[in-house]
Amino acid sequence: MGWGDLGAFGEPSKETPNLDQMASEGMLFLDFYTANPLCSPSRAALLTGRLPVRNGFYTTNAHARNAYTPQDIVGGIPDSELLLPELLKKAGYINKIIGKWHLGHRPQFHPLKHGFDEWFGSPNCHFGPYDNRALPNIPVYRDWEMIGRYYEDFKIDLKTGEANLTQIYLQEALDFISRQQASQQPFFLYWAIDATHAPVYASKHFLGSSQRGLYGDAVREIDDSIGKILKHLQKLGISENTFVFFTSDNGAALISAPKQGGSNGRFLCGKQTTFEGGMREPAIAWWPGHIPAGGVSHQLGNVMDLFTTSLSLAGLQPPSDRQIDGIDLLPAILQGKLIDRPIFYYRGNEMMAVRVGLYKAHYWTWSNSWEEYSKGIDFCPGQNVSGVTTHTQEEHTTLPLLFHLGRDPGEKYPLSFASDEYQGVMERISVVVQQHKETMVPGEPQLNVCDKAVMNWSPPGCEKLGKCLKPPKSDPKKCFWPH
Amino acid sequence: MGWGDLGAFGEPSKETPNLDQMASEGMLFLDFYTANPLCSPSRAALLTGRLPVRNGFYTTNAHARNAYTPQDIVGGIPDSELLLPELLKKAGYINKIIGKWHLGHRPQFHPLKHGFDEWFGSPNCHFGPYDNRALPNIPVYRDWEMIGRYYEDFKIDLKTGEANLTQIYLQEALDFISRQQASQQPFFLYWAIDATHAPVYASKHFLGSSQRGLYGDAVREIDDSIGKILKHLQKLGISENTFVFFTSDNGAALISAPKQGGSNGRFLCGKQTTFEGGMREPAIAWWPGHIPAGGVSHQLGNVMDLFTTSLSLAGLQPPSDRQIDGIDLLPAILQGKLIDRPIFYYRGNEMMAVRVGLYKAHYWTWSNSWEEYSKGIDFCPGQNVSGVTTHTQEEHTTLPLLFHLGRDPGEKYPLSFASDEYQGVMERISVVVQQHKETMVPGEPQLNVCDKAVMNWSPPGCEKLGKCLKPPKSDPKKCFWPH
Repeated sequence: MGWGDLGAFGEPSKETPNLDQMASEGMLFLDFYTANPLCSPSRAALLTGRLPVRNGFYTTNAHARNAYTPQDIVGGIPDSELLLPELLKKAGYINKIIGKWHLGHRPQFHPLKHGFDEWFGSPNCHFGPYDNRALPNIPVYRDWEMIGRYYEDFKIDLKTGEANLTQIYLQEALDFISRQQASQQPFFLYWAIDATHAPVYASKHFLGSSQRGLYGDAVREIDDSIGKILKHLQKLGISENTFVFFTSDNGAALISAPKQGGSNGRFLCGKQTTFEGGMREPAIAWWPGHIPAGGVSHQLGNVMDLFTTSLSLAGLQPPSDRQIDGIDLLPAILQGKLIDRPIFYYRGNEMMAVRVGLYKAHYWTWSNSWEEYSKGIDFCPGQNVSGVTTHTQEEHTTLPLLFHLGRDPGEKYPLSFASDEYQGVMERISVVVQQHKETMVPGEPQLNVCDKAVMNWSPPGCEKLGKCLKPPKSDPKKCFWPH
Repeated sequence: MGWGDLGAFGEPSKETPNLDQMASEGMLFLDFYTANPLCSPSRAALLTGRLPVRNGFYTTNAHARNAYTPQDIVGGIPDSELLLPELLKKAGYINKIIGKWHLGHRPQFHPLKHGFDEWFGSPNCHFGPYDNRALPNIPVYRDWEMIGRYYEDFKIDLKTGEANLTQIYLQEALDFISRQQASQQPFFLYWAIDATHAPVYASKHFLGSSQRGLYGDAVREIDDSIGKILKHLQKLGISENTFVFFTSDNGAALISAPKQGGSNGRFLCGKQTTFEGGMREPAIAWWPGHIPAGGVSHQLGNVMDLFTTSLSLAGLQPPSDRQIDGIDLLPAILQGKLIDRPIFYYRGNEMMAVRVGLYKAHYWTWSNSWEEYSKGIDFCPGQNVSGVTTHTQEEHTTLPLLFHLGRDPGEKYPLSFASDEYQGVMERISVVVQQHKETMVPGEPQLNVCDKAVMNWSPPGCEKLGKCLKPPKSDPKKCFWPH
């Protein structure tokens, strides 16, 4: 989902009444970012509070490449990483993940081995379709074992776009919350649903309900579900004890537009890029009785902050034996403070850009290769900013392209290198970047090696269901990451 | 000002708290249009309820050209046109225009000859600067006579961007409203301020107050002023008797971006074009006690509707002896009804496009000429949709380019000509267009002839001020309209 997909963020169909109401009862973050323009690294960053280049969710197979966790990925979240639920557990929290895990699907990466108490969902993206002979369909787990597979047991009709998955995830959420309220136990629910990822789907009730087509139908169903979750918290009388945060893991995938892709508002490009459209996210904090209604924050925020902020809410300190990139947002949320901190935009192992205050400096630019672009793969459809949305990897490390995101949120007008403004701002930014690079200790890259043998052929529980498949012989190779 | 310039419409700096509150207390129109992508024709359309091609505010000097009323224009609003204030007068209304008139500056076009009782402002745009020797500066009128000129008596500091004009216009509005309330007379106030037109300005208090630079400062001052006007109505106890509508006369002038141009959100291109960015406008209706708070309307609306709606509010019928294009929006505003009506997008004498429901068909496409574009005149900076943002006038009358503005508000993905959807929709649209063209009786074009002799050399009142200038000999010529 992209920055511009919500009514509160200017989507012209304005079809998200529940999220808009969440914003009017809570606080809207207008300058909130994800840690990576792609799913897996962002989610790893959210749960560890650390940049993907630290927690291992990146590749060194080629320069500045986006990488994630397809079925044949060998890597996953290292045991050495401390995840938010592992830490919350120490404060008595019960932790559940509903939806897409995406931090590795081999046994050692299972979410219940990394702090979660419960899981309903899948380890990988729901895309396919696979025929379950040449390649396995993605399994759906309940806790330790699989209970079926997408397309076989959890239907997604690729023709009509109909699927009940968001409804199932919603019911899981409501049930979990009810149980926790009944048992008076503090809980952490990570509602990491698959929608609006392509192939986009919605349940029958929502199909055709949007002005925006199938994508809008999916957004409406998410919006409706979140409204039901918030109302459930209120009905159970625990809304004033429950901090809720809504955001996304990357910008809208414009490559899938207009049928399966959303909107990044007026921002440049989309998912896969380090322009604003790829990484600035819709974000809303909600906590009745604590967050002043109708608040708006320009705090530079990041999904990694949800790690540190959640620990803070639970009265815990972040680990002190490692670099944590997330900051505690509570002063911004509860007291309206603005904390000075940079935002780093990475693509794989390369810091492509950095934001300090209202300024953003691009040290590298790249949308995708000419080769891909000529095949119709376009991360910036209809947009073309000369020297900015480049199709070759352009290095600007000696003279970064500098934008003022207040005057020019669309990253169309680089500041003149000769201007006083450029000189003054780059002096400040250079210090930030130098410090960042000097103290950077990259983790072991997890997204380098692929092997068909590690796919979800025989997940735990497959025997009971008669759904075990025979893996091919192991043949590990360097994964190919084209962009 | 553009669709995307308000917080309520997704401007990422969210610096319009008063307009956003106006929206939350009133009704937001998301599908509201101006009648032309340029100032004068739009304003003529607003005040007559008729398309510029009917009321004469267009040119036939070349095909599909935008035209307006610069100082050397010979034409203006014909006496045969009935303006809103002329009609409201019959119902006892006192009418005032504050700001830019723009319907012609020769004596016969004076606003007080066309129904207004009072005027404070200027006949033309405030741009320049002129040196008042080679060419006259624009006069500022109070009622019948000029009281000074821009740059001379009404300062605009082009270096700092400082000018008090919006403050002066605000004070005029507050005073007028107070007087009308005191005298218990119904009133029509047309607050047609110059800002945010280039050269952009703001008063000292607002300079530097925005994240968006000088343009944002100007927006903040407008926002603040509107907040003060609404509060004034409330303080005087007449807010429940006063219908207020906020909108703009064309999309943001992206040609002036980023320093002097605003935002059309995610819409394509800007002022001067018939893409959504050129003609879809921010729009808010406010009428406490009558309009339900927080309403949102997808009614296709147009500035021309303000003519018919205002008459309706005053208990008057629109003239029956001529074609009126504006519709009465009250059923949409007060009862949430959706009235089926098309939107026509004109450029000069050519119907470039039409919107019916969520579909928009382009019969002609053109941004500007290659010649202009190669000089750096760009109405779509950073945007380039192949075959859509064309630099030659492209005719599509036999096979219009069709867009679904719900799925594709950015006009990037024309529907396939072969699709059933295209066939079905174009059948509907063709009927609408055919009917429109068959019944179209164009008015006498007013924007064809230019003559330096008609400029504001010696406006009424200039003698008292010693500000009369000697006009050159009359030398009428065809005006040159490049785009």
